[in-house]
Amino acid sequence: MEKAIRVTVWNEYRHEREDAEVRRIYPEGIHGALASYLRTLPGLAVRTATLDEPEHGLTAEVLAETDVLLWWGHLAHDQVRDEVVERVQQRVWAGMGLITLHSAHYSKVFRRLMGTSCALRWREIGEKERVWLVEPGHPIAAGLPEHFELPHSEMYGERFDIPQPDALVFISWYAGGEVFRSGCCFQRGCGKIFYFSPGHESLPIYHQAEVLRVIDNAVRWAAPAGGPVPYAGHVPRPLEPIA
Amino acid sequence: MEKAIRVTVWNEYRHEREDAEVRRIYPEGIHGALASYLRTLPGLAVRTATLDEPEHGLTAEVLAETDVLLWWGHLAHDQVRDEVVERVQQRVWAGMGLITLHSAHYSKVFRRLMGTSCALRWREIGEKERVWLVEPGHPIAAGLPEHFELPHSEMYGERFDIPQPDALVFISWYAGGEVFRSGCCFQRGCGKIFYFSPGHESLPIYHQAEVLRVIDNAVRWAAPAGGPVPYAGHVPRPLEPIA
Amino acid sequence: MEKAIRVTVWNEYRHEREDAEVRRIYPEGIHGALASYLRTLPGLAVRTATLDEPEHGLTAEVLAETDVLLWWGHLAHDQVRDEVVERVQQRVWAGMGLITLHSAHYSKVFRRLMGTSCALRWREIGEKERVWLVEPGHPIAAGLPEHFELPHSEMYGERFDIPQPDALVFISWYAGGEVFRSGCCFQRGCGKIFYFSPGHESLPIYHQAEVLRVIDNAVRWAAPAGGPVPYAGHVPRPLEPIA
Amino acid sequence: MEKAIRVTVWNEYRHEREDAEVRRIYPEGIHGALASYLRTLPGLAVRTATLDEPEHGLTAEVLAETDVLLWWGHLAHDQVRDEVVERVQQRVWAGMGLITLHSAHYSKVFRRLMGTSCALRWREIGEKERVWLVEPGHPIAAGLPEHFELPHSEMYGERFDIPQPDALVFISWYAGGEVFRSGCCFQRGCGKIFYFSPGHESLPIYHQAEVLRVIDNAVRWAAPAGGPVPYAGHVPRPLEPIA
Repeated sequence: MEKAIRVTVWNEYRHEREDAEVRRIYPEGIHGALASYLRTLPGLAVRTATLDEPEHGLTAEVLAETDVLLWWGHLAHDQVRDEVVERVQQRVWAGMGLITLHSAHYSKVFRRLMGTSCALRWREIGEKERVWLVEPGHPIAAGLPEHFELPHSEMYGERFDIPQPDALVFISWYAGGEVFRSGCCFQRGCGKIFYFSPGHESLPIYHQAEVLRVIDNAVRWAAPAGGPVPYAGHVPRPLEPIA
Repeated sequence: MEKAIRVTVWNEYRHEREDAEVRRIYPEGIHGALASYLRTLPGLAVRTATLDEPEHGLTAEVLAETDVLLWWGHLAHDQVRDEVVERVQQRVWAGMGLITLHSAHYSKVFRRLMGTSCALRWREIGEKERVWLVEPGHPIAAGLPEHFELPHSEMYGERFDIPQPDALVFISWYAGGEVFRSGCCFQRGCGKIFYFSPGHESLPIYHQAEVLRVIDNAVRWAAPAGGPVPYAGHVPRPLEPIA
Repeated sequence: MEKAIRVTVWNEYRHEREDAEVRRIYPEGIHGALASYLRTLPGLAVRTATLDEPEHGLTAEVLAETDVLLWWGHLAHDQVRDEVVERVQQRVWAGMGLITLHSAHYSKVFRRLMGTSCALRWREIGEKERVWLVEPGHPIAAGLPEHFELPHSEMYGERFDIPQPDALVFISWYAGGEVFRSGCCFQRGCGKIFYFSPGHESLPIYHQAEVLRVIDNAVRWAAPAGGPVPYAGHVPRPLEPIA
Repeated sequence: MEKAIRVTVWNEYRHEREDAEVRRIYPEGIHGALASYLRTLPGLAVRTATLDEPEHGLTAEVLAETDVLLWWGHLAHDQVRDEVVERVQQRVWAGMGLITLHSAHYSKVFRRLMGTSCALRWREIGEKERVWLVEPGHPIAAGLPEHFELPHSEMYGERFDIPQPDALVFISWYAGGEVFRSGCCFQRGCGKIFYFSPGHESLPIYHQAEVLRVIDNAVRWAAPAGGPVPYAGHVPRPLEPIA
């Protein structure tokens, strides 16, 4: 039997405590909603962590035991301490998968791994978003329709300042006239990263079946593949005799 | 329980019948050697097909029941009938994985899927090849060392005329002074393609553990992911009302 | 002084002769309209060729003297003779740039160079298209705004069955609810290919300034870069002594 | 007439002042050698800057007037002040080209733009390196042979921990048995980046014709393309009326 994929769902967890409307939609927090869903799936071992725990809940031990980390943040990106950001980055380089959700495009973790500003256009009027699957052969496409709709969404629009993704899985259409690369795969070090824009604190997007299926697929895609840890540094002796 | 991945190992199967030395190394044919290995692995259902069978053993039925096709050819690329090539190409577009081995770089199937000449430099003096893993986080890297050697190999050297791979997993070093992109991933339609250059009819490369492990990994990576079959054609009605 | 880039604008040239409305918009044919524009620009030497000329106007001599070929076809893809398609493909491999416009997604030339079906969704109700520039640092972005509109366009929608582009420059939004990767760069052999979807026989899109600027930029981007012609074939002697 | 490309050659400039042997090879410093060469070429306006100048010679004014920055560093990466690194990164995002040479793989600037460790294997025994051109259609290939040799080189070997390049132009072969992706293109923000590994403080590699030609080509490829500065931030009003 395959070993379970160890998932940690991280959430800044501020909106839900400060705003009754957000709490109504995500009474257990966004991390709680996602963890509850993931716990219904086979082959996953799920825990959560939040900003206000010691070391933001992301101690070296927790990260060492995490195969895939989900990240949701919005209000408090700058309160995430740099040593934790550094630790997460190093863990991704060592093979941990990372799934950054919605406003996590602007998290320290994602921006450091991308090397770009990760800026975009945005608008919050609850317009319709239609998510188009442009790479139906990708593992993250499993079980999905060719397109699905979010009846009300925050608009995130191009130019999204990211490096060219290794694979572009989704492109979103917005009623207001914009488009967005809403599902993007990246490899950084030995770790796989998936950015997925659908989701919002005050909209029930993380209760929608297609969105949850994408996250399910992404967790499995991002799990470490079992390759070697590459050596880096001085190799004084050549592998071949030098004439 | 997961369904088995249905693998068909295709071989032109000429060298082995015409040349005693090749037959000594691959008494069951290269297809037989690869199939025997794959049958020792969990989760695979393996069959073989060869050039001189009716329809080259690749009827519409066989292809419809194939999740991943391995392809080995060398002497008789031009004897593969165009309607079978077309059928394989269409099946890849529909999601079947394809693993093209060594001299299959010049097969009709691979060239049609690439859209390029797939030409390269070659030399057959039995020199040493060292295969370097340059993408250790890729699924095809599972269980592999950072590099491994083929004590005697046919040299395939750059410029290898292929489109830029979606992922470059291996680069080979040759004692004679060349390099080669020896493990390349491509997506075409809904199907995944892996080209892997190590292997030769008169060298026991397909008995070497690392090479077999690469093929094992590639089969699992290339298996269909379960996404939707995309619709193409006329969609007379807009999804949104047009003002 | 730099040598002029030699451009050949190829057009199937059927709609314009058969349909008065098309002829009204493009009285000199689409090739004539594009050539007239390109002739106003510095550094280009422009000629045209059409389907009904001998060898479709694309003799070996013409292709040998062409640095960048523009291709417009729609009704008569299957009337393009295979030996001419082969000749164009080989010339692209040797370094000629190719710009395929709108319905040329389904031309034999483009499909052979891509290795995929190049199928898509389409609808012809004259809806609005907004073209978003997603790679503003690309040479094809020179002088362009971040987005521009085609007031009336034919919808081309995802899933567009192409290999992942080497660079994705434009994504289009449609009023009817679809998105499309409308500007895509590919390298095949030594030749650069740019697919650009805006344009239509019965709409004045090739008179619109932004569209023409894209084509101008693409011609300069696709011109041969001056690298070596790679050798392919047998290299009996190693570059290094073999122990 | 085209405007000149404004090039700034940055060098840490320590080896040359501390080591007589290095000074013998590069009496004007590596920056001086490269600048002298670039000044012989048409269409370039060249200046230099070094670590020990105020603000490392990279004031906001200098960077604003720089189209392409060359970067050479080795001993003193950690002495480059973070605010200058930040400034360079922002300028790349705004469109400045960046060419990082040899040991600059480990510079703060390059690592921040990549988001990875940029670690590699290395060995300094003066072995032979052969640089293979694997993308002969790329602008950086202009005027080059298919391969060229550095008679004595420092070995840089895989796994090179970088994101997958947008284009891989060169792969190096080493006598000691390694390979390396020695010429890699990246886009970050609106800026183009070329990493090129050949070069060393104690070897006359920056006097070799092919190496200089690569740098010449790379400067022209990396110059800003003239696209728009993308807007990022709040766009309260939709472009289309929302029902």
